[in-house]
Amino acid sequence: MADRGGGHRLGWLGAGRMGVALIHRLLDAGCDVTVYNRTRAKAEALAAAGAKIASTAAELASADIVFVTVGTSQDFIDALTGPGGLTSGDRAPSVVVDCSTVSAEASQRVREMLVGQGCALLAAPVMGNPKVAEVGRLTFAVSGSRLAFDTVGPYLDMLGAGATYVGDGELARTVKLCHNLFLGVVTQSLAEITVLAEKSGISRQALLACLNNSVMGSTFSRYKTPAFVNLDFHPTFTSSLLRKDFDLGLAAAREHEVPMPIASAVHQLVQGLVGYGFSEDDFATLLVLQARSAGLELASENAEVSDGLEPASRD
Amino acid sequence: MADRGGGHRLGWLGAGRMGVALIHRLLDAGCDVTVYNRTRAKAEALAAAGAKIASTAAELASADIVFVTVGTSQDFIDALTGPGGLTSGDRAPSVVVDCSTVSAEASQRVREMLVGQGCALLAAPVMGNPKVAEVGRLTFAVSGSRLAFDTVGPYLDMLGAGATYVGDGELARTVKLCHNLFLGVVTQSLAEITVLAEKSGISRQALLACLNNSVMGSTFSRYKTPAFVNLDFHPTFTSSLLRKDFDLGLAAAREHEVPMPIASAVHQLVQGLVGYGFSEDDFATLLVLQARSAGLELASENAEVSDGLEPASRD
Amino acid sequence: MADRGGGHRLGWLGAGRMGVALIHRLLDAGCDVTVYNRTRAKAEALAAAGAKIASTAAELASADIVFVTVGTSQDFIDALTGPGGLTSGDRAPSVVVDCSTVSAEASQRVREMLVGQGCALLAAPVMGNPKVAEVGRLTFAVSGSRLAFDTVGPYLDMLGAGATYVGDGELARTVKLCHNLFLGVVTQSLAEITVLAEKSGISRQALLACLNNSVMGSTFSRYKTPAFVNLDFHPTFTSSLLRKDFDLGLAAAREHEVPMPIASAVHQLVQGLVGYGFSEDDFATLLVLQARSAGLELASENAEVSDGLEPASRD
Amino acid sequence: MADRGGGHRLGWLGAGRMGVALIHRLLDAGCDVTVYNRTRAKAEALAAAGAKIASTAAELASADIVFVTVGTSQDFIDALTGPGGLTSGDRAPSVVVDCSTVSAEASQRVREMLVGQGCALLAAPVMGNPKVAEVGRLTFAVSGSRLAFDTVGPYLDMLGAGATYVGDGELARTVKLCHNLFLGVVTQSLAEITVLAEKSGISRQALLACLNNSVMGSTFSRYKTPAFVNLDFHPTFTSSLLRKDFDLGLAAAREHEVPMPIASAVHQLVQGLVGYGFSEDDFATLLVLQARSAGLELASENAEVSDGLEPASRD
Repeated sequence: MADRGGGHRLGWLGAGRMGVALIHRLLDAGCDVTVYNRTRAKAEALAAAGAKIASTAAELASADIVFVTVGTSQDFIDALTGPGGLTSGDRAPSVVVDCSTVSAEASQRVREMLVGQGCALLAAPVMGNPKVAEVGRLTFAVSGSRLAFDTVGPYLDMLGAGATYVGDGELARTVKLCHNLFLGVVTQSLAEITVLAEKSGISRQALLACLNNSVMGSTFSRYKTPAFVNLDFHPTFTSSLLRKDFDLGLAAAREHEVPMPIASAVHQLVQGLVGYGFSEDDFATLLVLQARSAGLELASENAEVSDGLEPASRD
Repeated sequence: MADRGGGHRLGWLGAGRMGVALIHRLLDAGCDVTVYNRTRAKAEALAAAGAKIASTAAELASADIVFVTVGTSQDFIDALTGPGGLTSGDRAPSVVVDCSTVSAEASQRVREMLVGQGCALLAAPVMGNPKVAEVGRLTFAVSGSRLAFDTVGPYLDMLGAGATYVGDGELARTVKLCHNLFLGVVTQSLAEITVLAEKSGISRQALLACLNNSVMGSTFSRYKTPAFVNLDFHPTFTSSLLRKDFDLGLAAAREHEVPMPIASAVHQLVQGLVGYGFSEDDFATLLVLQARSAGLELASENAEVSDGLEPASRD
Repeated sequence: MADRGGGHRLGWLGAGRMGVALIHRLLDAGCDVTVYNRTRAKAEALAAAGAKIASTAAELASADIVFVTVGTSQDFIDALTGPGGLTSGDRAPSVVVDCSTVSAEASQRVREMLVGQGCALLAAPVMGNPKVAEVGRLTFAVSGSRLAFDTVGPYLDMLGAGATYVGDGELARTVKLCHNLFLGVVTQSLAEITVLAEKSGISRQALLACLNNSVMGSTFSRYKTPAFVNLDFHPTFTSSLLRKDFDLGLAAAREHEVPMPIASAVHQLVQGLVGYGFSEDDFATLLVLQARSAGLELASENAEVSDGLEPASRD
Repeated sequence: MADRGGGHRLGWLGAGRMGVALIHRLLDAGCDVTVYNRTRAKAEALAAAGAKIASTAAELASADIVFVTVGTSQDFIDALTGPGGLTSGDRAPSVVVDCSTVSAEASQRVREMLVGQGCALLAAPVMGNPKVAEVGRLTFAVSGSRLAFDTVGPYLDMLGAGATYVGDGELARTVKLCHNLFLGVVTQSLAEITVLAEKSGISRQALLACLNNSVMGSTFSRYKTPAFVNLDFHPTFTSSLLRKDFDLGLAAAREHEVPMPIASAVHQLVQGLVGYGFSEDDFATLLVLQARSAGLELASENAEVSDGLEPASRD
């Protein structure tokens, strides 16, 4: 099966849970993918599905397009510009697509280094978690060279449910921050109304069923429903990570002179999660604090509720 | 075509825009519907589609199930219990389904009167506006007799995208208030991040495309997109009506001793809309105040953006 | 010693802690005061200081001016208009000065009854607690007849540190609500900065000494200092009473279409005090919640700090 | 007249409005003061009152104690450590007391340089504005060497209404930030209740008279009264400077993991002042935004109101 992206040689840097989910989607679509992961074993598990395995990041330099899903800003800098890194040899791919969540500063720094080697960097932060990725519902905000985006677009479409080009440079990272500010506000609001409903005599399950079914329902409100109903706060996104995104998002707002009355109020509540010891739990523990402040003792409703993340059908 | 609800005789009180949209759905599904409207002409327009027209509300008493979509609490009381009203004769339908937004007090009062005539009242407030109704995406929270809900459920399914039974008495009205508190918070949060994005150099269209496409996207965020992008604040729901729902929702929270830090902050912002002269505009004017506070002059982006309200397919 | 108020016969209804403190001030100033208290023993303790004791509220009708310090709106209505009440006979004083905290509705109702008997009602809610009263620092906002205020003014001056005429009818009650909204906001802000200071390495005592000494210091900030430093939350004003004043103050704001972003945010925090079980503690427990949300365990500093309530000198 | 501080030779760096007011107080108390100002003319005006005038900052190095009141962090660094600066020669005073508002970083850097020359730096930020200084009501939070504070204390007492030692290093700067966060919150709360009162029918003058007279009154609430009553927004402290202190105060709170729900809400409102074009007006323009949001058109009450800043008596 030929891929529908144009037959480019693809490289992938970083085979964590998110990376693996995404690589599988490319392989399933018939793409030619070479994978490098610091811990080689993780990459090798992909060989059975058709991936080629590289021994160094530098080996990926001969690919046309290299996707990156690494953990931190420093990992990103090391993998691209460090010794043995992607650009440590005498060639570079045409486009690097960074799907990690790295700082605008790290990204800007790498972008400038790559440009000297004729390589465009696209910032392509993802919206959604690994489970969302696995079912093909991840979306991407993309910024950088428009030309590069046009080349890469078909592959991004294979990776999830759509990519939107938002402009130059690091703008996609601002979009991601906006997205996460919204996500935090929405979660706090869900916590407030869920507790109000429960104290009024309505089960959390019933309230969330109504909301999820209504015009206000979203993939997010549905996949957070089990956490709210059955109090499963195993983290998909920790309070401290959300706090960090609020830190960054509100710093951006301050830089651009934008008051954010509601986002900043939620920022303080998320900070409270840290104070109350929930920093490494899922940020849905906002529900716990909300219930406490209302004198409500929460108990799991032990209900069978779907997270709505059935695999999306593929055409 | 026989209806799939069980062949009950249906009555409908109130043929405003929402009523008309819903009545058409029942008629299209082959139901037997008799309509009464204070201004008879409005009801008569439905005759061509197969509706029978009643001259008084009392005539609907011979129906099995009567739906109500009237404007105010007083209209509701008059239509059901006033002279010439539904229950002014010696019989009553088995079930009255109130899809209006009336006060819990009015509903409770009518409920008690109906029960003496062997008639169950279901509170079934709608989530969505008339346009949502027209495309079949309205949803209902329903409270009252569970038995009555089981009878009426199939018809509610015909009317929109689903009905959820939430418990006894007026609980559905609390769900509706929760829904609208959430809607207000979500809109303010969208306003904040949209202005942040715009001041960062990202068009409102691009930001909202990303969000709508992402896990955070909802039918609501999509149908508000044209207002945000092209600044069309022709009201679907006025600021003063939203303020009223916040008044009621926060009164319920106070009664149940539930702090609502974010909802109450939005309440004050919605109150500000009134002070700034937007009370009869759409509540999406929250965007206007947000932009002003950020020193941003908004201009329409004159973009072709969908409200996402294509008619839902029917199976 | 002749009193400096003009030698009127004074009556006093209600000899609780606040009443007793105030009556003593009149007696010390040489006034002619007759006291009625439901529990006669409390009134009799004042006889040694020169008070005359009445057996019924009605006996006070022959006074020129009657002050009222009772507990609740119902007590107020009963004492003035009930059987055996002040106006149950065929005469009435010229002026009744209500220093209680009663509802505007109760006050308005009594006002209308009194006017028919040629008696003016002044609403004169106090600002300050009984201890403040004892040291002569109580102040009064007064509304009602300006003429009556001119007569009563000299006595109010004896009672504390000043009375301000604010207008007709119940306006003084609005001033009292404004005062208490301010007091709640100030206390929450003190809680926030005290916890910030402590986590930065500054003792609560040092921070509050700086503030109290600075232009921001007030009688209030000084008399709350022992509570903040040594964690004495024995109530001078309970969280639930403060919550009630926020309920009323924000209802007034809603009625007059005034957004109150900060007062409403504090309202929710005070509501949280109730949820966390502090409703019958002093509202200075806002400090406790603030500390918890910051992950700070509070301990008494066991410091000798003054509440600043040394008796004011009299000239 | 011998000074009561111990007869030290004093130096003063910076003769702006605040510096001049403070130098006069030392001279009036009989102290030996040598003044350096970049613009020499300003310093010379003090000669008539008994000051000695220095030609360079370095000349002040022979003083025992040098006070600093300069404008910015950079001025501070230049004046102390630059060419021709205080420490550019081979000697240094025993103590430098910085009464400017400089950054903790600048202060820390200078502190380390001074310590090598056997000179202690005290951070002694002032609470109050130049007018407050002129009437002798300025207060100081002081941090650094306790020993140095004991030496300098008597002079600080001459300068105003009291100095409080709060701990090591830069802690006094945190106290100052706490003070200004409090000041901002108090002002917003005053704005809210003033507008509520006015829309209820109570003049701003009457409300503020009540408050100022009550236990909640402060030197600050009194000196802001003319601005609130007569709408004089000539800046004593601009919105943008207050915003900067909120930036710093909330950054400190974030560093110490302290949620600040109310301070952060006021931060956003102060940010709104910038958006609405009030950045260079007095921050009391919070009243203007508050009134607008309530649909209230403010007009000056043209009332004679005192700012309460009569000179304090000296014993």
